[in-house]
Amino acid sequence: MTSPLDLDLPAPELTAAICDIPSVSDDETALADAVESALRDRAHLRVDRDGDTVVARTELGRSERVILAGHLDTVPVAGNLPTRRDEHILWGRGTVDMKGGVAVALRLAAQLSAPSRDVTFIFYDHEEVEAAANGLGRVTRAHPEWLEADFAVLMEPSGGQVEGGCNGTLRVSVSTQGTAAHSARAWMGHNAIHDMADVLHRLVQYEPRRVEVDGLVYREGLNAVGISGGIAGNVIPDHCEVVVNHRFAPRHSVDDAYAHVCEVFTGYDVQLQDFAPGARPGLDHPAAQAFLAAVKAEPRPKYGWTDVSRFAVLGIPAVNYGPGDASLAHADDERVDVREIDGCEAHLRAWLSG
Amino acid sequence: MTSPLDLDLPAPELTAAICDIPSVSDDETALADAVESALRDRAHLRVDRDGDTVVARTELGRSERVILAGHLDTVPVAGNLPTRRDEHILWGRGTVDMKGGVAVALRLAAQLSAPSRDVTFIFYDHEEVEAAANGLGRVTRAHPEWLEADFAVLMEPSGGQVEGGCNGTLRVSVSTQGTAAHSARAWMGHNAIHDMADVLHRLVQYEPRRVEVDGLVYREGLNAVGISGGIAGNVIPDHCEVVVNHRFAPRHSVDDAYAHVCEVFTGYDVQLQDFAPGARPGLDHPAAQAFLAAVKAEPRPKYGWTDVSRFAVLGIPAVNYGPGDASLAHADDERVDVREIDGCEAHLRAWLSG
Repeated sequence: MTSPLDLDLPAPELTAAICDIPSVSDDETALADAVESALRDRAHLRVDRDGDTVVARTELGRSERVILAGHLDTVPVAGNLPTRRDEHILWGRGTVDMKGGVAVALRLAAQLSAPSRDVTFIFYDHEEVEAAANGLGRVTRAHPEWLEADFAVLMEPSGGQVEGGCNGTLRVSVSTQGTAAHSARAWMGHNAIHDMADVLHRLVQYEPRRVEVDGLVYREGLNAVGISGGIAGNVIPDHCEVVVNHRFAPRHSVDDAYAHVCEVFTGYDVQLQDFAPGARPGLDHPAAQAFLAAVKAEPRPKYGWTDVSRFAVLGIPAVNYGPGDASLAHADDERVDVREIDGCEAHLRAWLSG
Repeated sequence: MTSPLDLDLPAPELTAAICDIPSVSDDETALADAVESALRDRAHLRVDRDGDTVVARTELGRSERVILAGHLDTVPVAGNLPTRRDEHILWGRGTVDMKGGVAVALRLAAQLSAPSRDVTFIFYDHEEVEAAANGLGRVTRAHPEWLEADFAVLMEPSGGQVEGGCNGTLRVSVSTQGTAAHSARAWMGHNAIHDMADVLHRLVQYEPRRVEVDGLVYREGLNAVGISGGIAGNVIPDHCEVVVNHRFAPRHSVDDAYAHVCEVFTGYDVQLQDFAPGARPGLDHPAAQAFLAAVKAEPRPKYGWTDVSRFAVLGIPAVNYGPGDASLAHADDERVDVREIDGCEAHLRAWLSG
């Protein structure tokens, strides 16, 4: 099988080539096939596959094993493929989230036949959709031995910064209950939407906490992400529901965070909808210290939930480190400065060679 | 054509018979056919039909002509047909809204061959759905001569009370605009749902006016009837919309009422969605005075919008007067005390015979 991907292309060109194989979640097979066949050409790698997740590893018997991981899927294309290059800027879906990181990992996998640490490269599917479908989660359950390691780098875009751990996230619904009535005789009922004024007021008044964990300060958040209520245009509504997303520092368990939200909305019906725990940065581990020294970056906290939390659950310290500005992820004008891709690769190559 | 309706049945039995011909809006033809054929049997009536609206009139050359009107359609059946009778209580869809009134009008049409006033009986379709489909509105436009009269009684359930005029109604959408951002970095965006706290607070604080019109005091209302906002569970919402229903006294024009709502929501984007003007009670008209004397009732204001407003637009004073408790209209346990039906018929018969 000949791969359409040439892993010896410069990282920016390889990034463009990977982006130009569209791989919206649930449609990653073509790219996974290309990645798998390109890696199988390299004799120093053992390659495994599960669904559309490809795992390649060196087996050199080094005293330390690290993971470089990236997801292959993207959010839907928004007329922003194929990629286009404008001097240093590469535009298009996936350029930031996160095929620049995938390109770097693929080049390192292909070229470092004798890294200073054993390396497990993971290219996985279904990151951009519901958590239950996540390829990294699936492999964690099906082949936990593939993920054994001392330290992991998840190559999500971090602007070349090292982002330690991640905030946890949970969603609750907060409901108000009224009494329906014809809106011509509103005084016969009780308006559940009007009652939501107080709930929203509490959100407006809420001061998000800043929480220090292992030396990093995490900024939390409590935000309405949806609201709905109403029966018909002439009926006093008897129900209103707001969905609130809480982002909480990795010092707090999901239970603690949920209790906090319940306290904020004391007096209301608060139902937990879904959640994902945070991950402590864990930067005191020797492998993490060596990584920080090699990439010459001060760690900062990661606010968004990422799959580093999946490594944390396995007891593997993990950081986000990758090229691209995360705030451009999912944007129609998604783009990356390719010098960030080259810089990221140089740092990781130094770490894995030193 | 033989009608399945025997107009000489006692009014309660006739009400049950009419209810047992289901006639949910858009499906009134069977009942309209039955009404038309039953009325055509009466030689003293001229009968016209437009769609599923049947209009029957005496043509005696009286100095005064009055209208008795009722709609044939109901809201959807909720397992509450066929009707069942429990001593004085008749249960089932349509018993209140408004086949008791239709039964009374049909009996008077059939039996009063020489009323003291010429009478136009109108049985119309599509009252319970969007205003554009309303059969009375359609006939107003297609056959305005059918509706010429000095006074009209719309036989909507009013508990045997005379309800003068009706409040007007309008709906607006009030919107807030924010800036979308990932909810893990809420400070990069601006939450449009949180901004709605102030809008809802204004609704909570709002004191509805009470407005005297032609001697009747109308109670107004301003109520959220729907709210929506949100993009996804992890996105700070950039838009939120609340739909607000304003019920306003017939002293105010739609323009005045809309201006009032805009003032309440000063600083927000307020869009008029739909509206219907109110109707002044007009109880100073001699025909109305004679009616009030005959039914021996003190008039009170009507809060809900009803089709009396359609008569008001034609310059015809109109009241609501009919059997049944309006608060049971549309309810699954819709029911009427049949003595109210008999009482209503007796009063109208006295008026039209005196």
